[in-house]
Amino acid sequence: MSRFAPSNALFTDLYQLTMAQAYLRSGQTDEATFSLFVRNLPPDRGYLLFAGLEDVLSFLEDLGFTKDDLDYLRSTGQFGDDLIEYLSGFRFTGSVRAMDEGTPFFAGEPVIEVTAPVIEGQIVETFLINQVNMQSLFATKASRVVRAAIGAGVADFAARRTHGTDAGNKFARASYIGGFVGTSNVGAGAMYGIPTIGTMAHSFITSFDSELAAFRAYAAAFPNTTTLLVDTYDTAKGVDAAITVAHELEAAGHRLVGIRLDSGDLDVTSRMARKMLDEASLPYVQIVASGGLDEFSIETLASGGSPVDAYGVGTKAGVSADAPWSDAAYKQVTYAGQPVAKFSPGKSTLPGPKQVWRCHDEGDGKVLHDHLTSADAPAPDPLAVPLLRDVMRNGKRAGELPSIESVREKVRSEMEQLPDSVRALSDPATVEVLLADELTEWTPADE
Amino acid sequence: MSRFAPSNALFTDLYQLTMAQAYLRSGQTDEATFSLFVRNLPPDRGYLLFAGLEDVLSFLEDLGFTKDDLDYLRSTGQFGDDLIEYLSGFRFTGSVRAMDEGTPFFAGEPVIEVTAPVIEGQIVETFLINQVNMQSLFATKASRVVRAAIGAGVADFAARRTHGTDAGNKFARASYIGGFVGTSNVGAGAMYGIPTIGTMAHSFITSFDSELAAFRAYAAAFPNTTTLLVDTYDTAKGVDAAITVAHELEAAGHRLVGIRLDSGDLDVTSRMARKMLDEASLPYVQIVASGGLDEFSIETLASGGSPVDAYGVGTKAGVSADAPWSDAAYKQVTYAGQPVAKFSPGKSTLPGPKQVWRCHDEGDGKVLHDHLTSADAPAPDPLAVPLLRDVMRNGKRAGELPSIESVREKVRSEMEQLPDSVRALSDPATVEVLLADELTEWTPADE
Repeated sequence: MSRFAPSNALFTDLYQLTMAQAYLRSGQTDEATFSLFVRNLPPDRGYLLFAGLEDVLSFLEDLGFTKDDLDYLRSTGQFGDDLIEYLSGFRFTGSVRAMDEGTPFFAGEPVIEVTAPVIEGQIVETFLINQVNMQSLFATKASRVVRAAIGAGVADFAARRTHGTDAGNKFARASYIGGFVGTSNVGAGAMYGIPTIGTMAHSFITSFDSELAAFRAYAAAFPNTTTLLVDTYDTAKGVDAAITVAHELEAAGHRLVGIRLDSGDLDVTSRMARKMLDEASLPYVQIVASGGLDEFSIETLASGGSPVDAYGVGTKAGVSADAPWSDAAYKQVTYAGQPVAKFSPGKSTLPGPKQVWRCHDEGDGKVLHDHLTSADAPAPDPLAVPLLRDVMRNGKRAGELPSIESVREKVRSEMEQLPDSVRALSDPATVEVLLADELTEWTPADE
Repeated sequence: MSRFAPSNALFTDLYQLTMAQAYLRSGQTDEATFSLFVRNLPPDRGYLLFAGLEDVLSFLEDLGFTKDDLDYLRSTGQFGDDLIEYLSGFRFTGSVRAMDEGTPFFAGEPVIEVTAPVIEGQIVETFLINQVNMQSLFATKASRVVRAAIGAGVADFAARRTHGTDAGNKFARASYIGGFVGTSNVGAGAMYGIPTIGTMAHSFITSFDSELAAFRAYAAAFPNTTTLLVDTYDTAKGVDAAITVAHELEAAGHRLVGIRLDSGDLDVTSRMARKMLDEASLPYVQIVASGGLDEFSIETLASGGSPVDAYGVGTKAGVSADAPWSDAAYKQVTYAGQPVAKFSPGKSTLPGPKQVWRCHDEGDGKVLHDHLTSADAPAPDPLAVPLLRDVMRNGKRAGELPSIESVREKVRSEMEQLPDSVRALSDPATVEVLLADELTEWTPADE
């Protein structure tokens, strides 16, 4: 077997390629439409935030099989020369409709619809589900943590805990659009223009003869941007040492930014530290808390009045620990212009390309309900706003996507429009999705 | 902010670089040793299987900052010219001791120890934890699924569900060493030389005028390697159509490989399908089951006698859904030749470089217990086997790592040596790790 770095085109399931072979051989190569949606919302989720479109469009634009990819496929002996020949010229030539990134969506609503020659639409399935599923789960998780923090800043410390480097980078991006203030992940900061944030590790402290010596060394290197980690040995002594360094910085015309607590009972230690800092006339020194935090523990701290100014979250947020998967699906809804559907128990689909319409309360602007209709149906309500729009035509982007800052701002505003019951961290309500008659009354032509 | 593709060197937390700056400025650049271990085993885990070493060593060998990386770091204004200059010549020059991939390990046992100039040891932390944590969780999850399947083959169908592409590829590799028979992920098959496996999607069926026409088209393209997906419309009718195609293949001198069930009550439908196939004189046609399966549902099916020959698992296995994270840590244990430790509540560490020793029962070969000692301590027991060995010296590999097939075979044999109580899928026991006196009686020089 060969070993090489395959292109993204090979991030696909084998059956996409064997089906391509069978489609080619049987001359079944008409255009099809595929819908990407989740069948059900994960536990404790009243909404999901759509994310991943930027990567989906880049993938589709750049898609092609390299010579090494084709040599590998040939070497497996599973494919005929006709398929290898077809793949050697493969480009994605289809069209894509999608929601805007940062849009809340609900069960059964397509967030992306791909219309392309069936083989093209099929080969891209694996990557599209992978990215949209992951990034939407991440953005959603982040929005929950931000909501729990009640105004305190939240930073991504998850790079070491995510499932791999792709997830680490995508969590940084998705959590930023979900409302985080920055990431510890330097590469993600570079890629996406996200603010990078960091303090120090316990190992920095243990490298020095004393905690105070370590604090002084760090503050000397970063007199205006230092946050000191105070729990390596004994937290009260650590705060004392931080106060010493804060006063030394003041004497030199600088200010200590903060201290970080990373273990123990964060409510107890944050109150103790705040009292010690205030008594030392250091009210401006902020308290950063970290260590296994998620929206549930942050809600307890923040709603209980713990004097924490910022949270660093990693482990549980970076894998969306309470909901690490969704049942995102990518299903064929037309073939050769005809609506199609499957009826598998618990996994049936609705036929044809669709539009998702959102209705808001005219008074408070909150989301009332959605309508799911055929793509070409008229507005079901004069105030309904269509959510799917053209983002790619014939393999080319239909326009520039919004900047990451715009998407982040969109999430902030969209979250305000969700009812409290839908935003709830536990046992949320969801938004009703009304199905148009043409979707539910359809039966296949051959039945 | 710039946007570019950063090198792996930037997959690091900001604090690794700010600490590097402070280390440099304070002349605190001696050698340190770091231990990578998990503090606690995740829920329902009596063991973890160590995986990820191959990627760790490749990362360390290739590590360096590109001009674009350095330009980005300079552009942030966070770092001095002295650090940028230092990073421009950065290579990993340290040494690494590690367990063999595929070794079961337990709470508190180092799986990797890195000894290097402190800045080098620090900068690599983020990537090392990320990969070892992910790949070990994945290999462990796979070993559980394989055990639950009681001899039936298990294939990785997770590429669409993993958190990103890196996780998709690493799950394919880790699950293969954990005992899976192959992966649907074509790129991972290419990269790692893993068998690729696939059937067909519901969309293939819905593209054709009838299920039978779709089956015939696929079988025509792959007369010797076809597995037909039978639950798109009505499973009994789907099996009937598969039987028709199987007889047509027989008449042409071929054999249908199998049918796949992807929805509904898999126990009921597999028994129905087996009966129908047997009555149609097709005892050789295998039954593949898929759809939200994990070790718990597979155990129910397999131990209940469902006639399933092979399982395809994706969603829940590919994110290690019941245990998506561990508290893997990478902690400094020496600085400048002196043992160090931290005492944070619930997160204290043991000082100094270590050796892990495994003791087996002389009769049945089962693991009895482990010993954790200082790296230079003598064998605590004449039959104890040391698990950490040199894998990198002065930045170069100490030798070839075993092939993926060897690691897979090692896992098979290691799993046989674990007591049933430790391998249990729920509420397992674990293996006792006996701590040598020199680890627990140590106090820091300055206390």
